[in-house]
Amino acid sequence: MESAIKELEENCRAAKAASRKLARLSTEVKNMALAAIADKLRVRKEEILVANEVDLKEAAASGMNEALLERLTLSPSRIEGIANDVLAVAALPDPVGEVFDMRTLPNRLLIGRKRVPFGVVAAIYESRPNVTIDISVLCLKSGNAVILRGGREAVHSNSALAGVVREAALEARMPGGVVQFVENTDRALVNHLLKMSDCIDLVIPRGGEELQKSVKQNAAMPVISGGIGVCHTYVDKSADIIKAVEIVYNAKVQRPSVCNALDTLLVHADIAEKYLPLIAIELSKAGVEMRCDERALSILKGDSSLRLVPAADKDWGKEFLALVAAVRVVDSIDEALEHIERYGSGSDEAIVTEDYTSANRFLNEVDAASVYVNASTRFTDGGQFGLGAEVAISTQKMHARGPIGLKELTTYKWIIYGDGQVRP
Amino acid sequence: MESAIKELEENCRAAKAASRKLARLSTEVKNMALAAIADKLRVRKEEILVANEVDLKEAAASGMNEALLERLTLSPSRIEGIANDVLAVAALPDPVGEVFDMRTLPNRLLIGRKRVPFGVVAAIYESRPNVTIDISVLCLKSGNAVILRGGREAVHSNSALAGVVREAALEARMPGGVVQFVENTDRALVNHLLKMSDCIDLVIPRGGEELQKSVKQNAAMPVISGGIGVCHTYVDKSADIIKAVEIVYNAKVQRPSVCNALDTLLVHADIAEKYLPLIAIELSKAGVEMRCDERALSILKGDSSLRLVPAADKDWGKEFLALVAAVRVVDSIDEALEHIERYGSGSDEAIVTEDYTSANRFLNEVDAASVYVNASTRFTDGGQFGLGAEVAISTQKMHARGPIGLKELTTYKWIIYGDGQVRP
Repeated sequence: MESAIKELEENCRAAKAASRKLARLSTEVKNMALAAIADKLRVRKEEILVANEVDLKEAAASGMNEALLERLTLSPSRIEGIANDVLAVAALPDPVGEVFDMRTLPNRLLIGRKRVPFGVVAAIYESRPNVTIDISVLCLKSGNAVILRGGREAVHSNSALAGVVREAALEARMPGGVVQFVENTDRALVNHLLKMSDCIDLVIPRGGEELQKSVKQNAAMPVISGGIGVCHTYVDKSADIIKAVEIVYNAKVQRPSVCNALDTLLVHADIAEKYLPLIAIELSKAGVEMRCDERALSILKGDSSLRLVPAADKDWGKEFLALVAAVRVVDSIDEALEHIERYGSGSDEAIVTEDYTSANRFLNEVDAASVYVNASTRFTDGGQFGLGAEVAISTQKMHARGPIGLKELTTYKWIIYGDGQVRP
Repeated sequence: MESAIKELEENCRAAKAASRKLARLSTEVKNMALAAIADKLRVRKEEILVANEVDLKEAAASGMNEALLERLTLSPSRIEGIANDVLAVAALPDPVGEVFDMRTLPNRLLIGRKRVPFGVVAAIYESRPNVTIDISVLCLKSGNAVILRGGREAVHSNSALAGVVREAALEARMPGGVVQFVENTDRALVNHLLKMSDCIDLVIPRGGEELQKSVKQNAAMPVISGGIGVCHTYVDKSADIIKAVEIVYNAKVQRPSVCNALDTLLVHADIAEKYLPLIAIELSKAGVEMRCDERALSILKGDSSLRLVPAADKDWGKEFLALVAAVRVVDSIDEALEHIERYGSGSDEAIVTEDYTSANRFLNEVDAASVYVNASTRFTDGGQFGLGAEVAISTQKMHARGPIGLKELTTYKWIIYGDGQVRP
């Protein structure tokens, strides 16, 4: 363990040293590195698949369930998809170097803010090996060195992918050390990593609740945590019923395992008798279990084809990550807002309404990273929001909120041009 | 203690509830509250001075030193100055509600970011009672509720000042609870406060290194820490000697007790023999002790009027906060950059040079919140930078860096206007 710690410290220091040079590289060089990554992913597909095969065999032998095995699996078409995503990031504008708020002060100091990379970003993630590429590419494009520490179950795949990134970076003449891969997946090593605030500027945990919590508790540097979302959609009394069915269905069913999927449906009492049976049939067809409050239950209980369960207290504010939704009837938009305030996680919230004032109230009063009118919460995503890609969706209330893309991986420094000025 | 904790929790929850209403108040109401604070400071001057007198007596009795007593002291003119500062903040633009990056996506979703307050800001501070007003005013103007926990030594002054703020807020019809003052200065209560991430969105420690460290270690919410700065000024071989004398003198002497004052002077060898004797005389006249490396010492040692001490290893990277400066001769700008990289705290760094390329290199390569060419590092200040005022100068590398003013007390939420869109 001691030698592993020593190696980790050396690698982190190397990343820090490299990051200072990386921060000043031209967009051209960074895009060349990204193009080389896409190229190598294709050229070395076989080698990557062989490594992935090793992980899959070990995981299957250790009894990993089907869903997780699926997440772990790479295929030629998945690798092709990853390579295309890399080229999409290469095509995005480079945020580094942007100068803003520049102005001349009365004392003739010229002062402004210049966008700069954070420096070194550490990513601690689980399962999906494509995260190795996604995070590396976003970090390199935004001028950040990256320390990758993936999960034990994907270590061979991650190692092969990190090798691709490292070689591509060198081929594009990036300084050595900008990509570090932590092969040793010992937990104690992560805790050591989280204390190295002298080398690491930002840490991004990507994975389940336990990982997020543990990183937040132990990290000595700022953390961008996310991926946990208790999402509500409120169907107002003035809602267009067709839109409300489509939006709620999409929010719950399109991909139930992710953080921006619907957890609780709130329906105004005036529209509940008309709306609830319609959405309930659709949700049931898709296999959704509905955990209903008494009023919703009394509206729906006549239809024995539905999968209804009386809601328990713990169902409000629960992130299901599955084909389950809590359903509650409310008497007013105020009651809906109160429910969201009490149970929401500050991530993604939506209203379906045709009423102008209700729409505005919802947008203004809900305190969440993303607030929607008449659209599915499933859109919360760096790609969908036009950021190109994301390293994470932050549900923390920091200066950057929601999808964390290239710009959100940068900070600024004040630059001041003087001519001998001193403070009076 | 248990009842104090219970009271604290209730107050924090009240602040959270109030913050949701405060976030939506018009600029007019917020400015009315600020005007009322300025007004009440003047009207109730006597009462505040009496409370301050109690603190001063207790502090003197407990053996507080002169400098700290001075910091603790309020006077009619100081109160007048504080009232004027409040009005200056009222005159600043309100950052809340600004919408940026608004655009229509190909699927016709209209999406953008809207600037919103953080919510509840807790300030933990020492000594100077004016901080009670400064932080309250910046928080209220930026739409944040504020929890004030000042030091034991200023508790009567702080209580009187917080009372002024609270009453002014009510008078302007702000929701009750937007200003909370923690009267009980028990340390354990602070640690409890730092765990309340459900009610408090951001914590700002203002005080010495120990306070900063302890808050960073214990806080469950994001922290804006600062106030600690190891600042260098590098005098390049091409420097204008007169400017270099004025800038370095100002950076060291104008107010040596603050974080943006000069700690280490780096001088290029080619200019050292000419420059060092000139600046040394000026610094010595002001009572500055110079802790010199061997080369600086050998240049200066002939003048017995100077206060010279051989530098020890611990003097590099030390924040002196006093009339002391470390002095080192370097052979190149690269050596200066390396020294700053190794010993700097990432706060304020300056170069004095007439060389265009050296100026650019320094601006580009130094990783600090504020980087200067030909000006005193003493300018790092919200007021001086044109932000109007500041709650702190952050030396943390977060998305906001350097002086934390009104805008830096806000974050954003994504607002999305749909028309029935669902994710394919």
